[in-house]
Amino acid sequence: MTKQYRILIQCNDEKGLVYKVSSILYHRNLNILANNEFVDRTHTKFFMRSVVSGEANRESLKAELKEVLPPNAYLEIIAPRKKQIVLMVTKESHALGDLLIRYEAGELDAVIVGVVSNYDTLKPLVEKFGIPFYTVSHEGLSREAHEVRVMECLAGLGRIDYIVLAKYMRILTPVFVEAYTDKIINIHHSFLPAFIGANPYKQAYERGVKIIGATAHFVNNNLDEGPIIAQNVIHIDHAYSWEDMQRSGRDVEKIVLSRALKLALEDRIFIHANKTVIF
Amino acid sequence: MTKQYRILIQCNDEKGLVYKVSSILYHRNLNILANNEFVDRTHTKFFMRSVVSGEANRESLKAELKEVLPPNAYLEIIAPRKKQIVLMVTKESHALGDLLIRYEAGELDAVIVGVVSNYDTLKPLVEKFGIPFYTVSHEGLSREAHEVRVMECLAGLGRIDYIVLAKYMRILTPVFVEAYTDKIINIHHSFLPAFIGANPYKQAYERGVKIIGATAHFVNNNLDEGPIIAQNVIHIDHAYSWEDMQRSGRDVEKIVLSRALKLALEDRIFIHANKTVIF
Amino acid sequence: MTKQYRILIQCNDEKGLVYKVSSILYHRNLNILANNEFVDRTHTKFFMRSVVSGEANRESLKAELKEVLPPNAYLEIIAPRKKQIVLMVTKESHALGDLLIRYEAGELDAVIVGVVSNYDTLKPLVEKFGIPFYTVSHEGLSREAHEVRVMECLAGLGRIDYIVLAKYMRILTPVFVEAYTDKIINIHHSFLPAFIGANPYKQAYERGVKIIGATAHFVNNNLDEGPIIAQNVIHIDHAYSWEDMQRSGRDVEKIVLSRALKLALEDRIFIHANKTVIF
Amino acid sequence: MTKQYRILIQCNDEKGLVYKVSSILYHRNLNILANNEFVDRTHTKFFMRSVVSGEANRESLKAELKEVLPPNAYLEIIAPRKKQIVLMVTKESHALGDLLIRYEAGELDAVIVGVVSNYDTLKPLVEKFGIPFYTVSHEGLSREAHEVRVMECLAGLGRIDYIVLAKYMRILTPVFVEAYTDKIINIHHSFLPAFIGANPYKQAYERGVKIIGATAHFVNNNLDEGPIIAQNVIHIDHAYSWEDMQRSGRDVEKIVLSRALKLALEDRIFIHANKTVIF
Repeated sequence: MTKQYRILIQCNDEKGLVYKVSSILYHRNLNILANNEFVDRTHTKFFMRSVVSGEANRESLKAELKEVLPPNAYLEIIAPRKKQIVLMVTKESHALGDLLIRYEAGELDAVIVGVVSNYDTLKPLVEKFGIPFYTVSHEGLSREAHEVRVMECLAGLGRIDYIVLAKYMRILTPVFVEAYTDKIINIHHSFLPAFIGANPYKQAYERGVKIIGATAHFVNNNLDEGPIIAQNVIHIDHAYSWEDMQRSGRDVEKIVLSRALKLALEDRIFIHANKTVIF
Repeated sequence: MTKQYRILIQCNDEKGLVYKVSSILYHRNLNILANNEFVDRTHTKFFMRSVVSGEANRESLKAELKEVLPPNAYLEIIAPRKKQIVLMVTKESHALGDLLIRYEAGELDAVIVGVVSNYDTLKPLVEKFGIPFYTVSHEGLSREAHEVRVMECLAGLGRIDYIVLAKYMRILTPVFVEAYTDKIINIHHSFLPAFIGANPYKQAYERGVKIIGATAHFVNNNLDEGPIIAQNVIHIDHAYSWEDMQRSGRDVEKIVLSRALKLALEDRIFIHANKTVIF
Repeated sequence: MTKQYRILIQCNDEKGLVYKVSSILYHRNLNILANNEFVDRTHTKFFMRSVVSGEANRESLKAELKEVLPPNAYLEIIAPRKKQIVLMVTKESHALGDLLIRYEAGELDAVIVGVVSNYDTLKPLVEKFGIPFYTVSHEGLSREAHEVRVMECLAGLGRIDYIVLAKYMRILTPVFVEAYTDKIINIHHSFLPAFIGANPYKQAYERGVKIIGATAHFVNNNLDEGPIIAQNVIHIDHAYSWEDMQRSGRDVEKIVLSRALKLALEDRIFIHANKTVIF
Repeated sequence: MTKQYRILIQCNDEKGLVYKVSSILYHRNLNILANNEFVDRTHTKFFMRSVVSGEANRESLKAELKEVLPPNAYLEIIAPRKKQIVLMVTKESHALGDLLIRYEAGELDAVIVGVVSNYDTLKPLVEKFGIPFYTVSHEGLSREAHEVRVMECLAGLGRIDYIVLAKYMRILTPVFVEAYTDKIINIHHSFLPAFIGANPYKQAYERGVKIIGATAHFVNNNLDEGPIIAQNVIHIDHAYSWEDMQRSGRDVEKIVLSRALKLALEDRIFIHANKTVIF
């Protein structure tokens, strides 16, 4: 069976990029299985994701591509492998459970190396699936002290490609976020930028909105303001209490989070200017 | 053909309201065609809308109902008639045009007594439909002075049940808003409370959201913060410029505004605590 | 704490039903917490669901209500209790898993008395949750002979309020369906009535549709033609293979099925003329 | 200002197509503004749409591209111009009106050369917009005889790029359809393939569906079975009469039809195997 590679390019736009890249792939006898390009005209940025099959010496292919790309181009040639992910949760099980069921069915192209929580509430659920569960209680600790312990725990889990905050209800400090730049995916239970912060369903109830939603996004230093990956909404009406909103909203949250993670695992997401380009 | 009446009740909740009201309707030989009730448990408020057919002396029915309702109950018995509405616009034609086409087809249970604008851009379109168009230019005028002229114009149009801001791109002062309390319906081109204020599509583009939407709401003194009547969204992706968002968003705007107006014309909207109850 | 009862009424429409029913409730000192009525004008049928709190002698309340309702009225007074349900599955885990996670979180107001399957594929997943799993293989058996065994298995599970076909991929015979009239809820992986029968995603792929969906419905003798409870869709495009459709469609299937089950468990669904009225 | 061209390619897939095409564009100094490719693996077909800017001799560019493409490749190089379209209608104004308002606003990149109807109901509306209206009554005529007259009428309108059936409620014969292969866009008032044929809203009402929708598609010889361009749906419930469905459904119909027409006018639609590929 021939190998497949994902080639990711992000650079300043200039004439001939598609030609130059496809020329190299053609002459190396690599077959393009899927190809996406996008030019962000506001920032004059070029984005490309090619899936190719064939035999590639990744080092020499990378060198050859580098030569035709503008300086400082982002270039990755990925031989697909299972990524390693950590889930972080607090007490709610819907987003976690959705991922576990997919995992058990072999639908997640990843290895869940562990689930970390500040409570042990979800330990029984996680252990049903044979996945290590780590309780790192925050009780009696400052935010910083707690995070040190969480990071120690994470350090013991080997390579981490993505940290998925599957309803982890604590705010992360800049230290933590910077340690995992562009690697932390969060699900926020509102259609951002509406209802940033705590208790978005209560806020939505108070405001009397007719739709509620959820947003999966990368985490950066400003709470709930990182690059958005996926969003969805459902319609509600005046008869919904905020608890009803929460119950219905959970179905949106878990589906949106799972979809965002799938996009990340397939290397389909580029980040630029606090936004995502998704192929 | 028997007459129909819409009975609207909004009051503090107490035991037996459905029984007491339906008892009066039954003994007056009024047939209930449609009936909706809702109790807002947070505020202990009762809402009811009944459509009945039969012969009713509205004055005596009202008096009898008042007797069984709590003090200060809101009670209206409406013998349906075409409501009189004014449209206010600036330069964009999509929301206006959608209403005009429905009007021409006899789908709006209303009389459009006039269209008022601060520009004459849309005059040719409106006059095709035989509707008076009033240009009240704001040029060289303070906001207050301009509004005085707009209000003079409106005063000449007879009874006004609703003012529909069909992409009227000027902010109204509290004086204007108070003069038409709960009678001004606006379409805002975002899924409020996201992107309050000017240029929501540009804001949405900058934020990199994956959905855009529109919100029809009553106007109160705080810009874009009045009771929401209807909202809808569409999915977008990174390839949308803000102008693309605007173009696609217009389809949402016009449908949401028309739906909100229809609800108002059919007396289906209650307002309480800056929210709507819609039957 | 006061008790709650759900009162369900379905009968020929006639004047005064709301008055007569609410009068009885009022004079028995029962407080109406939620009330919904609907009149189907095509069939002149009246539907009502009231949730009341207070102390009720169900027998005498039932007798008193019967007296004011038309002959042959359907009337139920339900003191909420956990319903007993059986899940039937084949090999796919998404719909089953979604129900298990909700069950574990205490969100399903029901007891899952067992999961029945014609394969043992999902046994390990089900047993993680401490729920009995029964494999009733169809191999070497006629459809009828297999069903006899399934029904024997079900007979051993005590009272069954609902059978949920959570991707049970075998057609049921009229004998089975009649034994559980209005108690079998199925999820079909298309927006019915499109793509009745086998392999709806392949059919959808061949037809080149731009939306796919799922339908939860009661099962009657005509395959995929029973009363529809809930439907939803997602947008797709030409780039979706039928396997992509299947993968994405599963998210719709599981959410739609769970929502339908929730409606059933809360006694919110009336069936009439092969359609549902849902409060 | 430099010119823009749309290059459309549809052919059997083979290695190196992107390279070969982009090489020609690069060496002719044409700048790629937007580029989309898709490979249909089921049929081993390659689709490509490039928007380029620069100076091109279309004849020689076409010849050069033909040389590197497989035999029988479909290849078009379009210098964008306003396409000429004819609208065909019967009595309903919503889809027609939506197009007229967009046309008046300059949003349709097309010239409406005329509106043809079998009734004169919509003549006053169309003539408000200064567009010729042709009544071709079908009364007393066989379907074939009527179509001969319609085709005579169309023949007098010059080049026709697209015929838009904006709720034209008559079935077209194969003779008519073949005369305008891949040029007739219809809006069908259901989410096809559900409810093919007459009165889909009545069918939907009878079936008790919880969603209704609309489908824009090219017309081929089998009624409602041509390639689907766009679809959308809305949620409904048991309280909708079929007339309510019709009223609400019209909003979906008009938006879906306008979107499909926009895609056609921008040369974004490929047709293959009775399906569409849309960039």
